[in-house]
Amino acid sequence: MTIRAPVPGLAAGRVELSAETSHHLCRVLRLRERDRFVGFDPARKIEADGTIDVASGEAAIATFAETRPAAVIARAALVLVYAHAKGDKVDAVVRDATELGATLVVIAQTERAIVKADPARAATKLDRWRRIAEQAARQSGRGDAPAIEGVLPWSDALALAAKHATTRYCLWENATAPLGDSLPSSVASNAAIALAVGPEGGLTHAEVEEAQRHGFASVSLGSFVLRTETVPTAVLGAVRVLAGS
Amino acid sequence: MTIRAPVPGLAAGRVELSAETSHHLCRVLRLRERDRFVGFDPARKIEADGTIDVASGEAAIATFAETRPAAVIARAALVLVYAHAKGDKVDAVVRDATELGATLVVIAQTERAIVKADPARAATKLDRWRRIAEQAARQSGRGDAPAIEGVLPWSDALALAAKHATTRYCLWENATAPLGDSLPSSVASNAAIALAVGPEGGLTHAEVEEAQRHGFASVSLGSFVLRTETVPTAVLGAVRVLAGS
Repeated sequence: MTIRAPVPGLAAGRVELSAETSHHLCRVLRLRERDRFVGFDPARKIEADGTIDVASGEAAIATFAETRPAAVIARAALVLVYAHAKGDKVDAVVRDATELGATLVVIAQTERAIVKADPARAATKLDRWRRIAEQAARQSGRGDAPAIEGVLPWSDALALAAKHATTRYCLWENATAPLGDSLPSSVASNAAIALAVGPEGGLTHAEVEEAQRHGFASVSLGSFVLRTETVPTAVLGAVRVLAGS
Repeated sequence: MTIRAPVPGLAAGRVELSAETSHHLCRVLRLRERDRFVGFDPARKIEADGTIDVASGEAAIATFAETRPAAVIARAALVLVYAHAKGDKVDAVVRDATELGATLVVIAQTERAIVKADPARAATKLDRWRRIAEQAARQSGRGDAPAIEGVLPWSDALALAAKHATTRYCLWENATAPLGDSLPSSVASNAAIALAVGPEGGLTHAEVEEAQRHGFASVSLGSFVLRTETVPTAVLGAVRVLAGS
């Protein structure tokens, strides 16, 4: 299996690797001078063959050949709006969403969410989620990574998602239309899809109406009650399965 | 929202509740005498309205009205064969599989699995997984729960799954047929479906061939590499979405 490492700003020639990538390549995987790997820049969706010049767990140096378009990237826009949840639920959702091909994840503030946004910690959290997405991209062999935004007010999150997706669904336990009635044809037509998932305590009626105003159709997953952290993986998994190869 | 509690051996009349259910109803949810809830027996797929007679965190007593068929149960057989994994990955998979409608989960021993089966702890683990399934059924409003079996040798696990499912898929990263090509019609025809998922290190060629001999078609989820614990939720989520209501 090819060893892959995220290298923001990837270019042909000698490049000093980030502390995180240096640690992963030279300490965890024990790469030595002249060992080969593939560097990828998830933001620019390019990759290049690299060789370790200076092995170091803190500041390794590699030489890269000419860059090329990344071989494996998401082929259609796939946006997840996810209500900010307590603990490390968002971490797990970002990881799963990356593996399953999301191109944008927007973390949203909702009325019944158990966590309240703390502006002081917001930037730290966002950095953390972006790093998780980058690492999940590496592990899943993706040459891109989803953009991560938030924490935004529910309405702003919906508006941002709407900019990137023409077909929009809001999962809601009281909806009567099954997601399965329309998702297969949306995926088959290669539509840019957005999926909005509320918090543990559910979306308020006002929030569901707000989603409808932003063009999100209220849809249901059936009669079983799912935990909020199961829903993204289940619905993005459905998109993945339906998208096939 | 209705309070629900698993009550194995549920019958009309006075019933002493298990320590776990007593704790949940009377300590966590603080039910008192004359408070009402719904008891369900996941093995027999029946439920009944109950009233607390004696509130106790260890041995509560309830009186149940006549039992009735459970309102919400899985409508078609849905079997998951999952390679025994380290840590609490199996716990999470059992929980997700229950929420997503699995009717049987078989934990299998595979060659490249990181954990080796420890006969001394096998019964404890199985009990634990069954309890997790029961509690996940309660939380998801299901009146049934998946049967949990294992840890069985890969071949025996496949044979058991094959007894319960006519349409069988083995997820394999080297397969060329996308699961999405055939899953929608399998779900639409209400077929009894089995899905087999290998370990982190992948299935060996011999194991894939063994699956084929048991009638499991090798199928792929596309070009992204998924962690083994993401796959069950993703594919069972696809079944859930396609099954609609």
